[in-house]
Amino acid sequence: MALTGDVYDHNCPSRVIADHVTGRWGSLVLGKLLEGTLRFSALRREVRGVSEKMLAQTLQALERDGLVRRVVHPVIPPHVDYSLTEPGRQIALRIKGMFEWIEQNLPTLLAAQREYDDRRMANV
Amino acid sequence: MALTGDVYDHNCPSRVIADHVTGRWGSLVLGKLLEGTLRFSALRREVRGVSEKMLAQTLQALERDGLVRRVVHPVIPPHVDYSLTEPGRQIALRIKGMFEWIEQNLPTLLAAQREYDDRRMANV
Repeated sequence: MALTGDVYDHNCPSRVIADHVTGRWGSLVLGKLLEGTLRFSALRREVRGVSEKMLAQTLQALERDGLVRRVVHPVIPPHVDYSLTEPGRQIALRIKGMFEWIEQNLPTLLAAQREYDDRRMANV
Repeated sequence: MALTGDVYDHNCPSRVIADHVTGRWGSLVLGKLLEGTLRFSALRREVRGVSEKMLAQTLQALERDGLVRRVVHPVIPPHVDYSLTEPGRQIALRIKGMFEWIEQNLPTLLAAQREYDDRRMANV
């Protein structure tokens, strides 16, 4: 029998990886790296709102999961590149599909929010 | 020009919705509801590790975004059902694809973690 995970089991290591991938910043970082290799500073600029500390933590978790590759270039001044591994690319493609769906269906989603708020107001 | 969002812009409402969908519990709740309508108590049991408060907050955000439908049955004792709307189903399908990929590729991901940890140990 092959080993497969269960993300609904909070003791399964697949759940921890799912948390990294879907976490507040993990999904945005993976989606952005799908466009190509980026330095830390560029990633920080592109993933708007992330702090230096959170980005570093996010990248470290994704690197440990084998989804992101970190390459240190021994130049002066030194610089560090981040890119997707093949498993990382597989997951990032799925995340991008979800983001694109949200972006393209934003008017529908915003209309639902307005309706919800109107119903709430009517019940006050 | 059609209105489309940009999840990388932290001022765009699509980013807020992406946060709900990819958040710690949102993705698991959406994925689970793909299997069918569930009561609050059943969802709480199935999404292992979630607190009552976090599940209530997660469901409320997803309901406001028009992704989850909440139906109160006026019976004694009253009960409340949660199910996916059609937009919710579209997003949940994409989330499920990502979870399944992680579950099926868990051995590869765990091997990467072991390699990472071994490299770290070797450098201590």
